[in-house]
Amino acid sequence: MEFTSACVVGPGRVGIAFAARLAESLPTRLTGRELEIGDTDLVILCVPDRVVDEVAAAVPEGPWVAHTSGARTLDALDPHTRRFSLHPLQTIVPHRGPGQLDGAWAAVSGEGAEALEAGFQLASLLQLRPFALDDEDRLVYHAGAVMAQAFLVALHAAAADLFEEAGAPPEALLPLMRRTMENDFELTGPATRGDWETIERHLEVIREQRPELEPMYRALTEMTAAAVAGR
Amino acid sequence: MEFTSACVVGPGRVGIAFAARLAESLPTRLTGRELEIGDTDLVILCVPDRVVDEVAAAVPEGPWVAHTSGARTLDALDPHTRRFSLHPLQTIVPHRGPGQLDGAWAAVSGEGAEALEAGFQLASLLQLRPFALDDEDRLVYHAGAVMAQAFLVALHAAAADLFEEAGAPPEALLPLMRRTMENDFELTGPATRGDWETIERHLEVIREQRPELEPMYRALTEMTAAAVAGR
Repeated sequence: MEFTSACVVGPGRVGIAFAARLAESLPTRLTGRELEIGDTDLVILCVPDRVVDEVAAAVPEGPWVAHTSGARTLDALDPHTRRFSLHPLQTIVPHRGPGQLDGAWAAVSGEGAEALEAGFQLASLLQLRPFALDDEDRLVYHAGAVMAQAFLVALHAAAADLFEEAGAPPEALLPLMRRTMENDFELTGPATRGDWETIERHLEVIREQRPELEPMYRALTEMTAAAVAGR
Repeated sequence: MEFTSACVVGPGRVGIAFAARLAESLPTRLTGRELEIGDTDLVILCVPDRVVDEVAAAVPEGPWVAHTSGARTLDALDPHTRRFSLHPLQTIVPHRGPGQLDGAWAAVSGEGAEALEAGFQLASLLQLRPFALDDEDRLVYHAGAVMAQAFLVALHAAAADLFEEAGAPPEALLPLMRRTMENDFELTGPATRGDWETIERHLEVIREQRPELEPMYRALTEMTAAAVAGR
Protein backbone atom coordinates (compact mmCIF):
# COMPACT_ATOMS: atom_id res chain seq x y z
CA MET A 1 0.00 0.00 0.00
CA GLU A 2 1.20 3.50 -0.82
CA PHE A 3 -0.49 6.78 -0.13
CA THR A 4 -1.38 8.62 -3.32
CA SER A 5 -2.81 11.78 -1.75
CA ALA A 6 -3.27 13.35 1.67
CA CYS A 7 -5.50 15.78 3.48
CA VAL A 8 -4.12 17.65 6.49
CA VAL A 9 -6.77 18.94 8.91
CA GLY A 10 -5.73 21.94 11.01
CA PRO A 11 -3.74 24.85 9.59
CA GLY A 12 -1.63 25.37 12.72
CA ARG A 13 2.16 25.11 12.99
CA VAL A 14 2.35 21.34 12.56
CA GLY A 15 -0.40 21.19 9.92
CA ILE A 16 1.23 23.84 7.73
CA ALA A 17 4.69 22.26 7.97
CA PHE A 18 3.28 18.78 7.27
CA ALA A 19 1.18 19.92 4.29
CA ALA A 20 4.14 21.79 2.78
CA ARG A 21 6.42 18.77 3.09
CA LEU A 22 3.82 16.27 1.80
CA ALA A 23 3.04 18.50 -1.19
CA GLU A 24 6.64 17.90 -2.33
CA SER A 25 5.73 14.28 -3.16
CA LEU A 26 1.96 13.86 -3.50
CA PRO A 27 -1.26 15.84 -4.00
CA THR A 28 -2.01 17.40 -0.63
CA ARG A 29 -4.91 19.42 0.69
CA LEU A 30 -4.86 21.54 3.86
CA THR A 31 -8.22 22.20 5.46
CA GLY A 32 -9.65 23.82 8.60
CA ARG A 33 -12.71 22.94 10.63
CA GLU A 34 -14.92 22.95 7.53
CA LEU A 35 -13.35 19.54 6.83
CA GLU A 36 -13.10 19.73 3.05
CA ILE A 37 -11.41 16.36 2.94
CA GLY A 38 -11.92 15.62 -0.76
CA ASP A 39 -11.05 12.28 -2.30
CA THR A 40 -7.96 11.04 -0.45
CA ASP A 41 -6.52 7.90 1.13
CA LEU A 42 -4.95 9.63 4.17
CA VAL A 43 -6.39 12.18 6.59
CA ILE A 44 -3.97 13.64 9.15
CA LEU A 45 -5.48 15.46 12.11
CA CYS A 46 -3.14 18.23 13.28
CA VAL A 47 -5.62 19.64 15.79
CA PRO A 48 -5.42 20.38 19.53
CA ASP A 49 -5.45 17.30 21.81
CA ARG A 50 -8.85 18.06 23.26
CA VAL A 51 -10.68 18.14 19.91
CA VAL A 52 -9.12 15.09 18.22
CA ASP A 53 -12.12 12.85 19.09
CA GLU A 54 -14.67 15.33 17.82
CA VAL A 55 -12.84 16.00 14.53
CA ALA A 56 -12.10 12.30 13.98
CA ALA A 57 -15.79 11.46 14.43
CA ALA A 58 -16.69 14.00 11.75
CA VAL A 59 -14.31 12.54 9.13
CA PRO A 60 -16.10 10.17 6.71
CA GLU A 61 -14.90 6.56 7.11
CA GLY A 62 -12.77 5.09 4.36
CA PRO A 63 -9.30 6.67 4.24
CA TRP A 64 -6.52 6.06 6.78
CA VAL A 65 -6.89 8.52 9.66
CA ALA A 66 -3.99 9.66 11.82
CA HIS A 67 -3.47 12.13 14.62
CA THR A 68 -0.24 13.94 15.52
CA SER A 69 -0.74 14.31 19.26
CA GLY A 70 2.08 13.17 21.51
CA ALA A 71 -0.14 12.32 24.46
CA ARG A 72 -3.41 11.02 22.98
CA THR A 73 -3.97 7.32 22.33
CA LEU A 74 -5.48 5.69 19.26
CA ASP A 75 -9.01 5.44 20.65
CA ALA A 76 -9.24 9.20 20.12
CA LEU A 77 -9.67 8.25 16.43
CA ASP A 78 -12.86 6.21 16.98
CA PRO A 79 -14.79 5.02 15.04
CA HIS A 80 -12.01 4.68 12.43
CA THR A 81 -10.18 1.36 12.39
CA ARG A 82 -7.59 2.10 9.67
CA ARG A 83 -5.71 4.44 11.92
CA PHE A 84 -2.37 5.34 13.49
CA SER A 85 -0.70 8.23 15.24
CA LEU A 86 2.51 10.04 14.35
CA HIS A 87 3.97 12.61 16.72
CA PRO A 88 6.80 14.72 15.31
CA LEU A 89 9.42 15.04 18.04
CA GLN A 90 10.39 18.57 17.15
CA THR A 91 9.59 22.13 18.17
CA ILE A 92 7.82 23.65 15.16
CA VAL A 93 7.82 27.41 14.63
CA PRO A 94 6.00 29.32 11.89
CA HIS A 95 8.96 30.86 10.09
CA ARG A 96 11.10 27.79 9.42
CA GLY A 97 9.01 25.93 6.85
CA PRO A 98 9.05 22.16 6.26
CA GLY A 99 12.87 22.03 6.42
CA GLN A 100 12.57 22.13 10.20
CA LEU A 101 11.37 18.51 10.11
CA ASP A 102 14.73 17.33 8.76
CA GLY A 103 16.72 15.25 11.22
CA ALA A 104 13.85 14.99 13.69
CA TRP A 105 12.29 11.76 14.91
CA ALA A 106 8.65 10.71 15.02
CA ALA A 107 6.80 8.43 17.44
CA VAL A 108 4.45 6.12 15.54
CA SER A 109 1.72 4.07 17.23
CA GLY A 110 -0.57 1.64 15.43
CA GLU A 111 -2.58 -1.49 16.08
CA GLY A 112 -0.91 -4.18 14.00
CA ALA A 113 1.72 -4.35 11.27
CA GLU A 114 -0.31 -2.66 8.54
CA ALA A 115 -1.05 0.40 10.68
CA LEU A 116 2.59 0.72 11.74
CA GLU A 117 3.65 0.38 8.12
CA ALA A 118 1.24 3.17 7.19
CA GLY A 119 2.70 5.35 9.97
CA PHE A 120 6.26 4.65 8.86
CA GLN A 121 5.30 5.48 5.29
CA LEU A 122 3.96 8.86 6.38
CA ALA A 123 7.17 9.46 8.37
CA SER A 124 9.16 8.71 5.24
CA LEU A 125 7.10 11.19 3.18
CA LEU A 126 7.66 13.80 5.91
CA GLN A 127 11.39 12.94 6.03
CA LEU A 128 11.16 12.16 9.73
CA ARG A 129 12.97 9.24 11.43
CA PRO A 130 10.24 6.99 12.82
CA PHE A 131 10.24 4.68 15.81
CA ALA A 132 7.36 2.49 16.99
CA LEU A 133 5.85 3.43 20.33
CA ASP A 134 3.31 1.31 22.23
CA ASP A 135 0.06 3.23 22.45
CA GLU A 136 -0.09 2.86 26.25
CA ASP A 137 3.42 4.34 26.60
CA ARG A 138 2.61 7.62 24.86
CA LEU A 139 2.00 9.62 28.02
CA VAL A 140 5.36 8.72 29.57
CA TYR A 141 7.06 9.38 26.24
CA HIS A 142 5.33 12.74 25.91
CA ALA A 143 6.24 13.78 29.45
CA GLY A 144 9.89 13.20 28.45
CA ALA A 145 9.42 15.29 25.31
CA VAL A 146 7.90 18.18 27.27
CA MET A 147 10.82 18.04 29.71
CA ALA A 148 13.27 18.33 26.84
CA GLN A 149 11.47 21.34 25.33
CA ALA A 150 9.39 23.36 27.82
CA PHE A 151 11.61 22.67 30.79
CA LEU A 152 14.73 23.48 28.81
CA VAL A 153 13.09 26.84 28.06
CA ALA A 154 12.23 27.35 31.75
CA LEU A 155 15.73 26.35 32.86
CA HIS A 156 17.36 28.77 30.45
CA ALA A 157 14.99 31.56 31.52
CA ALA A 158 15.89 30.99 35.17
CA ALA A 159 19.63 30.97 34.47
CA ALA A 160 19.31 34.11 32.31
CA ASP A 161 17.33 35.74 35.11
CA LEU A 162 20.12 35.08 37.61
CA PHE A 163 22.68 36.40 35.12
CA GLU A 164 20.69 39.61 34.71
CA GLU A 165 20.42 39.89 38.47
CA ALA A 166 24.21 39.61 38.64
CA GLY A 167 24.83 42.01 35.74
CA ALA A 168 26.27 39.23 33.55
CA PRO A 169 25.30 38.94 29.85
CA PRO A 170 22.69 36.17 29.43
CA GLU A 171 24.02 35.36 25.93
CA ALA A 172 27.17 34.07 27.64
CA LEU A 173 25.11 31.02 28.67
CA LEU A 174 24.77 29.79 25.11
CA PRO A 175 28.29 28.47 24.43
CA LEU A 176 28.10 26.68 27.80
CA MET A 177 24.75 25.03 27.08
CA ARG A 178 25.69 24.10 23.51
CA ARG A 179 28.98 22.54 24.59
CA THR A 180 27.24 20.63 27.39
CA MET A 181 25.09 18.99 24.70
CA GLU A 182 28.07 18.43 22.38
CA ASN A 183 29.90 16.76 25.27
CA ASP A 184 27.06 14.25 25.50
CA PHE A 185 25.79 15.86 28.73
CA GLU A 186 28.94 15.19 30.71
CA LEU A 187 28.60 16.78 34.15
CA THR A 188 31.31 19.22 35.24
CA GLY A 189 31.48 21.89 37.94
CA PRO A 190 30.96 21.87 41.70
CA ALA A 191 28.86 18.67 41.90
CA THR A 192 31.57 16.57 40.24
CA ARG A 193 34.08 17.89 42.76
CA GLY A 194 31.77 16.99 45.65
CA ASP A 195 31.54 20.69 46.41
CA TRP A 196 28.06 20.75 47.99
CA GLU A 197 29.02 23.74 50.16
CA THR A 198 29.01 25.97 47.08
CA ILE A 199 25.66 24.59 45.96
CA GLU A 200 24.28 25.19 49.46
CA ARG A 201 25.51 28.78 49.27
CA HIS A 202 23.76 29.18 45.90
CA LEU A 203 20.58 28.04 47.55
CA GLU A 204 20.92 30.69 50.25
CA VAL A 205 21.38 33.50 47.77
CA ILE A 206 18.49 32.21 45.60
CA ARG A 207 16.24 32.08 48.65
CA GLU A 208 17.15 35.68 49.33
CA GLN A 209 17.08 37.17 45.85
CA ARG A 210 14.87 34.87 43.72
CA PRO A 211 12.79 32.74 46.10
CA GLU A 212 10.50 31.59 43.25
CA LEU A 213 13.43 29.56 41.86
CA GLU A 214 14.09 27.66 45.08
CA PRO A 215 11.87 24.57 44.50
CA MET A 216 13.41 24.03 41.06
CA TYR A 217 16.95 24.57 42.33
CA ARG A 218 16.39 22.18 45.20
CA ALA A 219 14.75 19.44 43.08
CA LEU A 220 17.42 19.53 40.39
CA THR A 221 20.23 19.61 42.96
CA GLU A 222 18.82 16.43 44.50
CA MET A 223 18.67 14.77 41.09
CA THR A 224 22.25 15.84 40.39
CA ALA A 225 23.39 14.50 43.76
CA ALA A 226 21.63 11.18 43.12
CA ALA A 227 23.25 10.92 39.68
CA VAL A 228 26.72 11.64 41.12
CA ALA A 229 26.20 9.10 43.92
CA GLY A 230 24.96 6.47 41.46
CA ARG A 231 27.90 6.68 39.05
CA MET B 1 51.22 46.61 31.59
CA GLU B 2 51.47 43.35 29.73
CA PHE B 3 52.04 39.90 31.10
CA THR B 4 55.31 38.42 29.92
CA SER B 5 55.02 35.00 31.56
CA ALA B 6 52.52 32.99 33.58
CA CYS B 7 52.41 30.21 36.13
CA VAL B 8 49.27 28.08 36.36
CA VAL B 9 48.78 26.31 39.70
CA GLY B 10 46.66 23.16 39.58
CA PRO B 11 46.98 20.58 36.80
CA GLY B 12 43.25 19.81 36.63
CA ARG B 13 40.92 20.29 33.67
CA VAL B 14 40.93 24.08 33.75
CA GLY B 15 44.63 24.38 34.63
CA ILE B 16 45.74 22.14 31.78
CA ALA B 17 43.54 23.90 29.20
CA PHE B 18 44.66 27.35 30.43
CA ALA B 19 48.36 26.45 30.45
CA ALA B 20 48.13 24.98 26.95
CA ARG B 21 46.42 28.10 25.59
CA LEU B 22 48.75 30.54 27.37
CA ALA B 23 51.80 28.66 26.14
CA GLU B 24 50.77 29.64 22.61
CA SER B 25 51.69 33.27 23.36
CA LEU B 26 54.02 33.48 26.37
CA PRO B 27 56.34 31.38 28.56
CA THR B 28 54.04 29.35 30.81
CA ARG B 29 54.68 27.00 33.67
CA LEU B 30 52.14 24.50 35.07
CA THR B 31 52.70 23.43 38.67
CA GLY B 32 50.97 21.35 41.32
CA ARG B 33 50.89 21.76 45.08
CA GLU B 34 54.68 21.98 45.26
CA LEU B 35 54.17 25.54 43.97
CA GLU B 36 57.19 25.86 41.74
CA ILE B 37 56.12 29.32 40.69
CA GLY B 38 59.41 30.47 39.21
CA ASP B 39 60.00 34.03 38.09
CA THR B 40 56.68 35.23 36.65
CA ASP B 41 54.37 38.22 36.67
CA LEU B 42 51.10 36.26 36.79
CA VAL B 43 50.05 33.33 38.98
CA ILE B 44 46.69 31.71 38.15
CA LEU B 45 45.17 29.44 40.77
CA CYS B 46 43.11 26.71 39.09
CA VAL B 47 42.46 24.82 42.33
CA PRO B 48 39.28 23.63 44.08
CA ASP B 49 37.20 26.40 45.71
CA ARG B 50 37.89 25.25 49.24
CA VAL B 51 41.70 25.46 48.95
CA VAL B 52 42.03 28.81 47.12
CA ASP B 53 42.79 30.70 50.37
CA GLU B 54 45.43 28.24 51.50
CA VAL B 55 47.22 28.10 48.14
CA ALA B 56 47.02 31.90 47.68
CA ALA B 57 48.59 32.43 51.11
CA ALA B 58 51.50 30.18 50.11
CA VAL B 59 52.28 32.12 46.91
CA PRO B 60 55.11 34.66 47.40
CA GLU B 61 53.87 38.25 47.05
CA GLY B 62 54.90 40.19 43.99
CA PRO B 63 53.21 38.87 40.83
CA TRP B 64 49.55 39.34 39.94
CA VAL B 65 47.53 36.52 41.50
CA ALA B 66 44.20 35.32 40.08
CA HIS B 67 41.75 32.55 40.85
CA THR B 68 39.36 30.87 38.42
CA SER B 69 36.54 29.99 40.79
CA GLY B 70 33.04 31.03 39.79
CA ALA B 71 31.75 31.34 43.34
CA ARG B 72 34.67 32.60 45.43
CA THR B 73 35.26 36.31 45.99
CA LEU B 74 38.53 38.22 45.81
CA ASP B 75 39.27 38.05 49.54
CA ALA B 76 40.12 34.39 48.96
CA LEU B 77 43.35 35.75 47.46
CA ASP B 78 44.50 37.49 50.69
CA PRO B 79 47.10 38.79 51.41
CA HIS B 80 47.73 39.63 47.73
CA THR B 81 46.55 43.04 46.59
CA ARG B 82 47.44 42.84 42.89
CA ARG B 83 44.69 40.35 42.24
CA PHE B 84 41.62 39.49 40.16
CA SER B 85 39.45 36.52 39.37
CA LEU B 86 38.57 35.06 35.97
CA HIS B 87 35.98 32.31 35.71
CA PRO B 88 35.75 30.60 32.33
CA LEU B 89 32.06 30.10 31.58
CA GLN B 90 32.53 26.78 29.85
CA THR B 91 32.35 23.08 30.63
CA ILE B 92 35.93 21.83 30.29
CA VAL B 93 36.64 18.17 29.55
CA PRO B 94 40.05 16.50 29.36
CA HIS B 95 40.04 15.40 25.72
CA ARG B 96 39.20 18.68 23.96
CA GLY B 97 42.38 20.71 24.56
CA PRO B 98 42.58 24.51 24.67
CA GLY B 99 40.33 24.86 21.59
CA GLN B 100 37.36 24.28 23.85
CA LEU B 101 37.86 27.79 25.25
CA ASP B 102 37.06 29.36 21.87
CA GLY B 103 33.77 31.22 21.79
CA ALA B 104 33.26 30.99 25.55
CA TRP B 105 32.86 33.93 27.89
CA ALA B 106 34.70 34.72 31.12
CA ALA B 107 33.53 36.54 34.25
CA VAL B 108 36.24 38.91 35.49
CA SER B 109 36.18 40.56 38.92
CA GLY B 110 38.76 43.02 40.16
CA GLU B 111 39.10 45.91 42.58
CA GLY B 112 39.76 48.95 40.40
CA ALA B 113 40.56 49.62 36.77
CA GLU B 114 44.06 48.16 36.80
CA ALA B 115 42.90 44.81 38.18
CA LEU B 116 40.03 44.61 35.67
CA GLU B 117 42.45 45.46 32.89
CA ALA B 118 44.74 42.66 34.05
CA GLY B 119 41.79 40.24 34.03
CA PHE B 120 40.71 41.32 30.56
CA GLN B 121 44.28 40.88 29.35
CA LEU B 122 44.33 37.33 30.65
CA ALA B 123 40.97 36.68 28.95
CA SER B 124 42.42 37.96 25.71
CA LEU B 125 45.44 35.63 26.02
CA LEU B 126 43.04 32.73 26.68
CA GLN B 127 40.85 33.82 23.75
CA LEU B 128 37.83 34.12 26.02
CA ARG B 129 35.22 36.91 25.78
CA PRO B 130 35.42 38.79 29.10
CA PHE B 131 32.76 40.70 30.97
CA ALA B 132 33.19 42.51 34.29
CA LEU B 133 31.28 41.07 37.23
CA ASP B 134 30.96 42.76 40.62
CA ASP B 135 32.68 40.62 43.22
CA GLU B 136 29.56 40.51 45.43
CA ASP B 137 27.46 39.22 42.50
CA ARG B 138 29.58 36.14 41.85
CA LEU B 139 27.42 33.72 43.79
CA VAL B 140 24.22 34.64 41.93
CA TYR B 141 26.10 34.51 38.64
CA HIS B 142 27.58 31.12 39.48
CA ALA B 143 24.20 29.72 40.51
CA GLY B 144 22.99 30.63 36.99
CA ALA B 145 26.01 28.94 35.44
CA VAL B 146 25.41 25.74 37.40
CA MET B 147 21.77 25.76 36.29
CA ALA B 148 22.84 26.00 32.67
CA GLN B 149 25.29 23.08 32.99
CA ALA B 150 24.50 20.63 35.81
CA PHE B 151 20.74 21.11 35.63
CA LEU B 152 20.75 20.74 31.86
CA VAL B 153 22.51 17.41 32.41
CA ALA B 154 19.93 16.39 35.04
CA LEU B 155 17.03 17.47 32.84
CA HIS B 156 18.31 15.49 29.89
CA ALA B 157 18.89 12.43 32.08
CA ALA B 158 15.31 12.60 33.36
CA ALA B 159 13.85 12.97 29.87
CA ALA B 160 16.04 10.11 28.58
CA ASP B 161 14.90 8.02 31.53
CA LEU B 162 11.24 8.54 30.63
CA PHE B 163 12.01 7.72 26.99
CA GLU B 164 13.64 4.46 28.01
CA GLU B 165 10.68 3.68 30.22
CA ALA B 166 8.43 4.22 27.18
CA GLY B 167 10.68 2.24 24.81
CA ALA B 168 11.54 5.36 22.78
CA PRO B 169 15.13 6.05 21.65
CA PRO B 170 16.73 8.66 23.96
CA GLU B 171 18.88 9.97 21.07
CA ALA B 172 15.64 11.27 19.53
CA LEU B 173 15.71 14.02 22.18
CA LEU B 174 18.79 15.65 20.71
CA PRO B 175 17.34 17.29 17.57
CA LEU B 176 14.51 18.62 19.76
CA MET B 177 16.82 20.11 22.38
CA ARG B 178 19.22 21.52 19.79
CA ARG B 179 16.44 23.18 17.82
CA THR B 180 14.92 24.60 21.01
CA MET B 181 18.22 26.41 21.56
CA GLU B 182 18.51 27.46 17.91
CA ASN B 183 14.96 28.88 18.13
CA ASP B 184 16.15 31.13 20.96
CA PHE B 185 14.27 29.06 23.55
CA GLU B 186 10.84 29.69 22.05
CA LEU B 187 8.29 27.67 23.99
CA THR B 188 6.05 25.30 22.01
CA GLY B 189 3.88 22.34 22.97
CA PRO B 190 1.01 21.86 25.43
CA ALA B 191 1.78 24.85 27.69
CA THR B 192 1.55 27.33 24.80
CA ARG B 193 -1.85 25.88 23.89
CA GLY B 194 -3.06 26.25 27.49
CA ASP B 195 -3.32 22.46 27.62
CA TRP B 196 -2.73 21.98 31.36
CA GLU B 197 -4.85 18.82 31.35
CA THR B 198 -2.14 16.98 29.43
CA ILE B 199 0.54 18.27 31.79
CA GLU B 200 -1.57 17.14 34.76
CA ARG B 201 -1.87 13.68 33.18
CA HIS B 202 1.94 13.59 32.78
CA LEU B 203 2.23 14.30 36.47
CA GLU B 204 -0.04 11.36 37.31
CA VAL B 205 1.98 8.93 35.22
CA ILE B 206 5.27 10.27 36.63
CA ARG B 207 3.96 9.88 40.16
CA GLU B 208 3.11 6.26 39.32
CA GLN B 209 6.18 5.24 37.33
CA ARG B 210 9.00 7.63 38.31
CA PRO B 211 8.01 9.29 41.61
CA GLU B 212 11.56 10.61 42.14
CA LEU B 213 10.98 13.00 39.19
CA GLU B 214 7.81 14.54 40.61
CA PRO B 215 9.32 17.51 42.54
CA MET B 216 11.31 18.57 39.47
CA TYR B 217 8.34 18.13 37.14
CA ARG B 218 6.10 20.11 39.45
CA ALA B 219 8.58 22.96 40.02
CA LEU B 220 9.36 23.40 36.32
CA THR B 221 5.69 23.19 35.35
CA GLU B 222 4.96 26.04 37.75
CA MET B 223 7.78 28.10 36.25
CA THR B 224 6.48 27.39 32.75
CA ALA B 225 2.95 28.38 33.78
CA ALA B 226 4.23 31.61 35.33
CA ALA B 227 6.19 32.41 32.15
CA VAL B 228 3.14 31.76 29.94
CA ALA B 229 0.91 33.89 32.20
CA GLY B 230 3.45 36.71 32.26
CA ARG B 231 3.87 37.03 28.50
